[in-house]
Amino acid sequence: MSGNGAGAPLRVIPLGGLGEIGLNLLVLEHGDTAIAIDCGVMFPDAEMPGIDVAIPDVTYLRGLGERFRAIFLTHGHEDHIGALPYVLAERALPVYGTPLTLGFVRERLREHGLSGSLAPYGAEPCRVGPFAVEPFAMTHSIPDSVGLAIRTPIGTVVHTGDFKLDQTPLDGRLPDIGRLAELGAEGVALLFSDSTNVERPGITPSERSVGAELEAIFRQAAGRVLVTTFSSHIHRMQQVIDLAARFGRKVALVGRSLVAHAGVARDLALLRVPDGTLIELAQARDLPRDEVTLITAGSQAEAASALVRIAMDGHKLVTVEPGDAVVLSSRIIPGNERAISNLVNHLYRRGAVVYYDRVARVHVSGHASQEELKLVLNLVRPRHFVPVHGEYRHLVRHQRLAMEVGIPAERCHLLEDGDVLELGDAGARRAERVTAGRVFVDGKGIGDVEGVVLRDRRHLSEDGLVLAVLVIHQRSGEIVAGPDLVSRGVVGEEASPEVLDAARGAVMEALAALNPESRTDPAEVKEEVRRALRRYFKRFERRPVILPVVMEM
Amino acid sequence: MSGNGAGAPLRVIPLGGLGEIGLNLLVLEHGDTAIAIDCGVMFPDAEMPGIDVAIPDVTYLRGLGERFRAIFLTHGHEDHIGALPYVLAERALPVYGTPLTLGFVRERLREHGLSGSLAPYGAEPCRVGPFAVEPFAMTHSIPDSVGLAIRTPIGTVVHTGDFKLDQTPLDGRLPDIGRLAELGAEGVALLFSDSTNVERPGITPSERSVGAELEAIFRQAAGRVLVTTFSSHIHRMQQVIDLAARFGRKVALVGRSLVAHAGVARDLALLRVPDGTLIELAQARDLPRDEVTLITAGSQAEAASALVRIAMDGHKLVTVEPGDAVVLSSRIIPGNERAISNLVNHLYRRGAVVYYDRVARVHVSGHASQEELKLVLNLVRPRHFVPVHGEYRHLVRHQRLAMEVGIPAERCHLLEDGDVLELGDAGARRAERVTAGRVFVDGKGIGDVEGVVLRDRRHLSEDGLVLAVLVIHQRSGEIVAGPDLVSRGVVGEEASPEVLDAARGAVMEALAALNPESRTDPAEVKEEVRRALRRYFKRFERRPVILPVVMEM
Repeated sequence: MSGNGAGAPLRVIPLGGLGEIGLNLLVLEHGDTAIAIDCGVMFPDAEMPGIDVAIPDVTYLRGLGERFRAIFLTHGHEDHIGALPYVLAERALPVYGTPLTLGFVRERLREHGLSGSLAPYGAEPCRVGPFAVEPFAMTHSIPDSVGLAIRTPIGTVVHTGDFKLDQTPLDGRLPDIGRLAELGAEGVALLFSDSTNVERPGITPSERSVGAELEAIFRQAAGRVLVTTFSSHIHRMQQVIDLAARFGRKVALVGRSLVAHAGVARDLALLRVPDGTLIELAQARDLPRDEVTLITAGSQAEAASALVRIAMDGHKLVTVEPGDAVVLSSRIIPGNERAISNLVNHLYRRGAVVYYDRVARVHVSGHASQEELKLVLNLVRPRHFVPVHGEYRHLVRHQRLAMEVGIPAERCHLLEDGDVLELGDAGARRAERVTAGRVFVDGKGIGDVEGVVLRDRRHLSEDGLVLAVLVIHQRSGEIVAGPDLVSRGVVGEEASPEVLDAARGAVMEALAALNPESRTDPAEVKEEVRRALRRYFKRFERRPVILPVVMEM
Repeated sequence: MSGNGAGAPLRVIPLGGLGEIGLNLLVLEHGDTAIAIDCGVMFPDAEMPGIDVAIPDVTYLRGLGERFRAIFLTHGHEDHIGALPYVLAERALPVYGTPLTLGFVRERLREHGLSGSLAPYGAEPCRVGPFAVEPFAMTHSIPDSVGLAIRTPIGTVVHTGDFKLDQTPLDGRLPDIGRLAELGAEGVALLFSDSTNVERPGITPSERSVGAELEAIFRQAAGRVLVTTFSSHIHRMQQVIDLAARFGRKVALVGRSLVAHAGVARDLALLRVPDGTLIELAQARDLPRDEVTLITAGSQAEAASALVRIAMDGHKLVTVEPGDAVVLSSRIIPGNERAISNLVNHLYRRGAVVYYDRVARVHVSGHASQEELKLVLNLVRPRHFVPVHGEYRHLVRHQRLAMEVGIPAERCHLLEDGDVLELGDAGARRAERVTAGRVFVDGKGIGDVEGVVLRDRRHLSEDGLVLAVLVIHQRSGEIVAGPDLVSRGVVGEEASPEVLDAARGAVMEALAALNPESRTDPAEVKEEVRRALRRYFKRFERRPVILPVVMEM
């Protein structure tokens, strides 16, 4: 690769977001300059017990050193900005974004004690080495979202960001379809497009369509109206606030992140609240129930969230009573179905009327469906296409959609995280893969909890643990103390002391049968204890983790 | 309650299936006789790590003793028959059902080394004390399903069983709507009706509608066709087998339970396989790919299932290759979304074309939607109504549907498991609740794993465990051996020995600071070790389970 990159290929390196959910990070590299688009986290699923968050493995970026020069953001969702504190803690870098996106980033950085060099997109393209980056308006489930047109030595690259083509956006800021058409007419070398909703035929409904449904709910509600949505969904919040004002209700926000995000959006005039509409939660208690609307966190039924506590009748300031309406105005993130279902059951038990996706159209997606995706492909008509933001099956189906509208198969590139695509004069080719993956954050530890630890956690959770401690005399092998047995998560110890008593007997018996030499060898004693306990619990078809501790005196 | 029950009320006691999913068991009691309808299990969710299955708490039935006299089954699904081995192991009882249902029960009992007294429904109603039970045909996602009309001293009780009103059932056995109308005309005191799909408007499509979709898949498939469905879904299997035969393909069944269920259904002529169509899996390997169809287990992406092993390229006899079609012809049981999504991604990675509910209509539900539920309510026009088979929210919505078609609110009874409804001359009243709930089966243990153990398992899974062992001299309090520290699921021990070394140091320090009296008290030493380790790990924002073991010499 030459120093200034003349004649060099454009290297496309997804480090997150392709083939896995969440965690978007895409690197573009030309000559001695690399830039990244987005830098997100993903939240853990049931396979990652105890994990707070997963961030992308940035080994490759670290290796680039000074050549990695800037990060460009498309919008302010956690899966696009959440890893910035971790990346910027290693090396300061300019971060470009729209005002709302940067507002959310600033908040995140502050939590980590960082400031960062944040720069709003200007009227002119941002130039970084051979790249010139120009944002264009897109619509999504968060305001101030953009796609990016990036001029590079090998031609123009277009990235849609996360988008849908909402023709009646709440803030009147239309997706810039004209710009997409212009770029297409000029010639686009490479398109990255959002694959999330590629399984859905037709067109994703406008955000405004939710308003009509919410209006009907407000019209009927005899008591309080509680609405839960994602804290970054400013337009959803706006619709609820507008309806509350229209129906003579005050609004209280419940949840730290909701309050923070609403604050950032209000400062930028992207959330407009009629005077006197917002009140503190404590004030809501003194108002008649039909004059109160609450917007609460907890749309995924997170155990510690306000809404779950409210549903379980365990919130200090808020109760739900017959006649109240509760609206789950959000999608269900896969893995949370059971928890959300339980939440709905509890709300019904309190007498609330509950509105959720299965019975009311109280949420619409922020991602484009098939007809929108085809429209973008046809407008941009790129020479090369890389579907992004989706699990493997979404990428495959998006690629197929591209082929349907006439993009040749050999110019559709199905990349997964860590794959490297090089585009140059000689066309497209795959280069050697680079390190990519997820790094887990657990408390203050980053990356110290990995496969083995998670496997242990899963094993512990399924079968519990039995601990056996004994002290042997180092010369005679005599048992000086113990064996003492302790179990956790195996059987109710208090309820079944006889189980552990019998297990202790089994250990004693096994050790008595050991030949004299082995008795003085702690490793052999340990193994014998393990074997005896494994055998003992097998009778009950249990396979607890067995931890023998043999001490010598 | 009088001995023969003259003038006594009918007691309705759900012990499972109302307010919780799965696990159906409904008791009807009059005078000195009690009968049960269905007797099912539920499969564990993420909140029940390590649990094999949950069965109903039958404390109440046990208390009835000899008065509990028979069990009547509506159909052969696990959530309706799965707990029979546990109940019958306690006391032999006659069990009534249709031939297929009893065939599946027989198989289950055999696995538990039981035989049981199984009796097919006859032409005459089955009389047990004051009850006379008569089945009528219903359609569901398993053949040979019935509803029950039960004559009792307080009037006729109708139970729909799990049902939909399929007007073109695959076997031509129509739901007996005429009988429902007759019963309604005669007068029905109480109706129990299936609430599963009460959230869905309209009518559930016929099982036959899946056939058209499957036919299109068979027509296009260039390689093998793999179909996964529930092993009890005999009609789905029938459709796949018929299509395979039509398209000149042989069929192999993959999965123990599929083979067993197909065997039972074939013996009863409820599954008809054209001669020479079924082959052994080993034979399939020698046939051209476009002459093979596989029906496999693993529709819920169970980790050990054939389909998951196939998708991960880890099955001894079956591979998936480009051009193969894989059809997930089943619903996603809540909680399995992530696993199924991963399964689909892996199948795409192998080059298969994958058909699943989001992109193809390859499954229909076996439960009635709103219009069917209203039709049944209008035909039966019961005096009292109890919605069954649903979570709390379903029961609420079903009750509301009943009120919409004119059943007065005071005659709709929203019961949860353990509630008791008494119907008599004086009308309906609630009686004192009885014991009800889930009992967990883990290996050979029944009921020994309960709340505390599960909480321990979850805690272990989220934060892992640290164990500290030391031996103290009982008079001087001197540390004779240890402290030895072992951790599991906290940090990679091999990777970070310094973490445990430092923790050991923290324990030593804390113990050195203890006053002399406390040092000889094992309980105080233990508590001090716990405190020291808790403090130490808090620095890393970790909260492992801490198990101090202090031995005395």
